[in-house]
Amino acid sequence: MSKLGILSEMLPQNADGALIFSATNRRYFTDFVSSLGYLLVTREKSYLFVDSRYSEAAQKKAKDCTVVAYKVLSDDMADIISQNGLKNIMLESSAITLSECEHIEKIFAKANAAALKSNELDRIINTMRVIKTSDEIEKMHRAQVITENALRETLKLIKEGVTEREIALELEFRMRRSGAEGVSFDLIVLAGEHTSMPHGVPEFSRVKRGDLILFDIGATYDGYHSDMTRTYAFGNIGSEQKRVYATVKQAQQNALDMIKEGVSCGEVDDAARIYISHAGYGEYFGHSTGHGVGLDIHEVPSVSPKSDFILRNGMVVTVEPGVYLPDRFGVRIEDMVVVTSSGYMNFASMSKELTVI
Amino acid sequence: MSKLGILSEMLPQNADGALIFSATNRRYFTDFVSSLGYLLVTREKSYLFVDSRYSEAAQKKAKDCTVVAYKVLSDDMADIISQNGLKNIMLESSAITLSECEHIEKIFAKANAAALKSNELDRIINTMRVIKTSDEIEKMHRAQVITENALRETLKLIKEGVTEREIALELEFRMRRSGAEGVSFDLIVLAGEHTSMPHGVPEFSRVKRGDLILFDIGATYDGYHSDMTRTYAFGNIGSEQKRVYATVKQAQQNALDMIKEGVSCGEVDDAARIYISHAGYGEYFGHSTGHGVGLDIHEVPSVSPKSDFILRNGMVVTVEPGVYLPDRFGVRIEDMVVVTSSGYMNFASMSKELTVI
Repeated sequence: MSKLGILSEMLPQNADGALIFSATNRRYFTDFVSSLGYLLVTREKSYLFVDSRYSEAAQKKAKDCTVVAYKVLSDDMADIISQNGLKNIMLESSAITLSECEHIEKIFAKANAAALKSNELDRIINTMRVIKTSDEIEKMHRAQVITENALRETLKLIKEGVTEREIALELEFRMRRSGAEGVSFDLIVLAGEHTSMPHGVPEFSRVKRGDLILFDIGATYDGYHSDMTRTYAFGNIGSEQKRVYATVKQAQQNALDMIKEGVSCGEVDDAARIYISHAGYGEYFGHSTGHGVGLDIHEVPSVSPKSDFILRNGMVVTVEPGVYLPDRFGVRIEDMVVVTSSGYMNFASMSKELTVI
Repeated sequence: MSKLGILSEMLPQNADGALIFSATNRRYFTDFVSSLGYLLVTREKSYLFVDSRYSEAAQKKAKDCTVVAYKVLSDDMADIISQNGLKNIMLESSAITLSECEHIEKIFAKANAAALKSNELDRIINTMRVIKTSDEIEKMHRAQVITENALRETLKLIKEGVTEREIALELEFRMRRSGAEGVSFDLIVLAGEHTSMPHGVPEFSRVKRGDLILFDIGATYDGYHSDMTRTYAFGNIGSEQKRVYATVKQAQQNALDMIKEGVSCGEVDDAARIYISHAGYGEYFGHSTGHGVGLDIHEVPSVSPKSDFILRNGMVVTVEPGVYLPDRFGVRIEDMVVVTSSGYMNFASMSKELTVI
């Protein structure tokens, strides 16, 4: 059954339609990529509303739905709602803004339909998206292979005096020349004391011997993301850098060792966090241990403290603890894995041994 | 006065605070770039709430505000609201989703404050952002120069058999190597019949003699966007392609000729649309004539039919009519201009004469 077919069967009793608004969910259900559009799902059939910019492309590419090229959205959508006799239409509360909602409710009102604004539709769609199909996992693996090949080649080019920005650009170009649709996010390449900022931005500062260099990188392939972090030593590093590296590496392994179907995300987070705390660095690990990945770079579930979300076969999550000593340095190590009934399969194949480049 | 100072003076009587949520508006007011954060503006002072990932960087870079590195947002934000005795806080209705709004309202409730959910805050911020400062115009000009240099160099490399994707990638790399922060949007390079899709995506198809090649491209510089479209002939093209090109070129010039302070956006749109209709191509020009540009690629105002939005000195808009014949070809020509009291200044310097490459 198509994904849209499954969704229409999952509509709750109190709803006879759902309006999908976010670009990723439109893509998930129709395979059609656009910056704007509205996917109206009913129990019978689905309609993709696009403006004139996309009408020809959508007719050719959007699957499992009828394309409606609107001139005036409010007229065309109200007509379709009336024709189908829809009365209660769910909205994606995590994607629609207050002002968009106001606009949509006016359209619904023209057709005597009401908007259901709970988070139920998001919950249903996330329930589908959180379990990856083999086709989705294949795409994420291709994104991962592109990422690793680019990193291996780029590592060979690093020498004293190149800037973080130059390294990041080199990585991105190599990914895209080898088939990546794009990057998963603005690539993070940080050196020396910049590594102490978990989400620092590459600057024009130059790498120098004795620096740690942190790469938090990923490519997209056919919409699907990869995500990996490695931290390398550029020349000889000091004993505390080595101690922090060893701490993060073991914490990451402890979290990975917890992963299998039936375990909660909170337990995975605990495994990393408790180890880092016992090593004396607890206050320097401020973020969550990981997150789901797929068509979005951040998806359900969050692998965070106290989360009782239970991992299931086919979920994809990152495991990425870190320790960040302000104004000094930081270390993060991240793999992306698929949960299985007996453990996990790691998308990443690059070594996590402390490596001098 | 700082931008945040101006905003706090513009708070309406019924509000004693405003919560800014969107990444671009956080950047506009604080110069600090982050993917997540909350900027709370009061009549006295402003607070930027960031999580641990951004706390060190925000302390160093965010201007005109107090940085609050939160552990639990709901506790820390409620405390600040209580300390400042805030009772009515405006939200950005165009940026906050229904589910985020629910989350924020719970935080406000802890501090006995209410959310004001009209579009008033968006309107006030847009009123500020729509008029560009000379500093902003300077950044947009740098983005434009980077864009044009990249296009000039890339045009020399085009030969029979290269793909749309290769050309787009080459353009992007040249922009970024010459100082662009990024691209304004996924660059559009389309050839042959693909040009009939106003927002087509570059494919692996190869350019061939007799094609029109359409470039809709732009770079960002320090957050600010440029936007330009040029359509070129690759070798000899047919008479209808030439006729459509001449039609679009004159329509674009007619719209440009309308632009000056005091004119409505609808009048500018009319100037292009009426000319295209009289030439017999009215049904093949389905989008608006232009849009505002700045920190976002699409900003207020929309240069669209019937718009009574009045252009003012310092506004930046695009002028980009097009004609798209389904399954055959399309032409679009776009400049980005600053409105002045006597006309406009064009960011673009590249020729719009029909050019064979």
